[in-house]
Amino acid sequence: MKFKSERDFIASLRRRVHRRPRRLIAGIGDDAAVLNMRSGEEWCITTDLLVEGIHFDLHYDSAHSVGHKSLTAGLSDIAAMGARARFALVSIAVPSSKAEPFLSGFYRGFLPLARKCGVTLIGGDTSRSERDCFVDVIVMGQSLQPSIRRSGARVGDLIFVTGTLGQAAWGLHLLRNSPLAKTRAEKSAIQAHLHPTAQTEAGLWLGKNRLASAMIDVSDGLSTDLHHLCRESGVGARVEERKIPVAPMPSRKQALRYALTGGEDYQLLFTVHPANLHRVRGRISKLGLSEIGRIVSREAGVLLISPGGRSKKLPISGWDHFREGIR
Amino acid sequence: MKFKSERDFIASLRRRVHRRPRRLIAGIGDDAAVLNMRSGEEWCITTDLLVEGIHFDLHYDSAHSVGHKSLTAGLSDIAAMGARARFALVSIAVPSSKAEPFLSGFYRGFLPLARKCGVTLIGGDTSRSERDCFVDVIVMGQSLQPSIRRSGARVGDLIFVTGTLGQAAWGLHLLRNSPLAKTRAEKSAIQAHLHPTAQTEAGLWLGKNRLASAMIDVSDGLSTDLHHLCRESGVGARVEERKIPVAPMPSRKQALRYALTGGEDYQLLFTVHPANLHRVRGRISKLGLSEIGRIVSREAGVLLISPGGRSKKLPISGWDHFREGIR
Repeated sequence: MKFKSERDFIASLRRRVHRRPRRLIAGIGDDAAVLNMRSGEEWCITTDLLVEGIHFDLHYDSAHSVGHKSLTAGLSDIAAMGARARFALVSIAVPSSKAEPFLSGFYRGFLPLARKCGVTLIGGDTSRSERDCFVDVIVMGQSLQPSIRRSGARVGDLIFVTGTLGQAAWGLHLLRNSPLAKTRAEKSAIQAHLHPTAQTEAGLWLGKNRLASAMIDVSDGLSTDLHHLCRESGVGARVEERKIPVAPMPSRKQALRYALTGGEDYQLLFTVHPANLHRVRGRISKLGLSEIGRIVSREAGVLLISPGGRSKKLPISGWDHFREGIR
Repeated sequence: MKFKSERDFIASLRRRVHRRPRRLIAGIGDDAAVLNMRSGEEWCITTDLLVEGIHFDLHYDSAHSVGHKSLTAGLSDIAAMGARARFALVSIAVPSSKAEPFLSGFYRGFLPLARKCGVTLIGGDTSRSERDCFVDVIVMGQSLQPSIRRSGARVGDLIFVTGTLGQAAWGLHLLRNSPLAKTRAEKSAIQAHLHPTAQTEAGLWLGKNRLASAMIDVSDGLSTDLHHLCRESGVGARVEERKIPVAPMPSRKQALRYALTGGEDYQLLFTVHPANLHRVRGRISKLGLSEIGRIVSREAGVLLISPGGRSKKLPISGWDHFREGIR
């Protein structure tokens, strides 16, 4: 197995797993795998890794934040399927010297969020590690309707996103460079990095009402995640730059860069068939939605339209999990 | 959360998770969590961590062996529930410099074993790590009868174990100290360490026929795992030293030590109600079973009976995953 990038590796792995056994609705390549456990009930299962030195740095991320964030990553994947998170398992490897403070802090962040979201911890594994902490959180979610996949977007669908984008990436930048936040915007960016919120309510509402034709969570930056959705759906997209809900930052240019290429926003990016548009638009303010563009043909590509009306290709500039350092 | 050992930590976590939602049959504290997904069908889910420097050392364990062994650990947990493994997810963190050779080797070990056992890879996560490789494998298994728990052993039940014990630990010792194996026994011990086999057939047969009252896989040494089973069942045990199926080694004393305190045997330890004894005894040679003792009252303790008839307490001397170094 030879590969040039993470994307290449996953594609190669997917080609090698071609079995489609009974019960399996979706395997590798979506926010979560989907199993059809009984008539009218699907279960989604997802796993998210958080590695010290890559996803967190204990100099400015507390173990509490790691516990909260690791569950948020799973909740966000389950929300992106339109499902309700129900169960979790946690695997943690930690050096002996840090075991007690790290585990105590981790579960002080993890368990209250789990309780709040109706998620029960049902198992896991623990190990010593030589140097770095390593966390893998598995979340299982239940859906009483067909799960929303990345692959359902069709030409003419409208593109929406929840919340604001780029805040967590800016928060990380602030923590590293000027941790004593002054403005309210700075404080809320740091909060978005340390204690992000998954869009569980929006995901569940879209799922229950079958209003999203495709959905993905924005964890690697709008640009990369929109490309994922378009590739799985076999379509292109036109996104209007001025409509992207960026975080309030001193510079609009910087805000846009964080929104497109930052990570860990845990917002939802989804598409809506025109027939369902009125219902989604009716919830725009309640769920904090923004309509940012439209699905076009694959041949047209994935484009960003400037306020002046000029279009340019949106690069896949997000995160390659094998190559880059800590964000 | 304060704790002195891994066991203490897990007990404390278990106390903090007291919800027992619908669908959940068994949570923290067994080989796998058990969910009742539809009438007459349970699903077991387990997760196993393998950490570089703790569970494997790439100087003598190949990535191929890590791939094979990580799935074996999950298959063994599912077998210990009497269930059939069906789906797997894999999370891997690996330094950029090792990503391609490690992942290629890993999946050359993992995928053929998965195919052979009817397990489909349905998802996972990948990340860069700073220094060490981390692997977390999640396996889901299906059972068409109630899963076999650790907690079902009753006074008077007979204790059985599959295969031979201590071989993998001896194999690891050989790899570290005299990797050029000479005898057949040495070669087969090294093989047991590098490419262990889960007792899927025995587990499934015991499950389907409801012949085991309690079961656990022997991954941390007979002594520790028997204590786990006895604690969950609220019983004691008398194990006859001469009946323990030790690996063929130059010294019987060393062989017994490896069997009691070694790890990664991936054999099954189970108990049988006297009424079912004739059926299990009928399979002794086909499944490679040994009858090693009997369940007694909790007050009697967990005892090892010497060939001369003297009894001594069997210490919990296995593996504390937070404290010890590489085995």
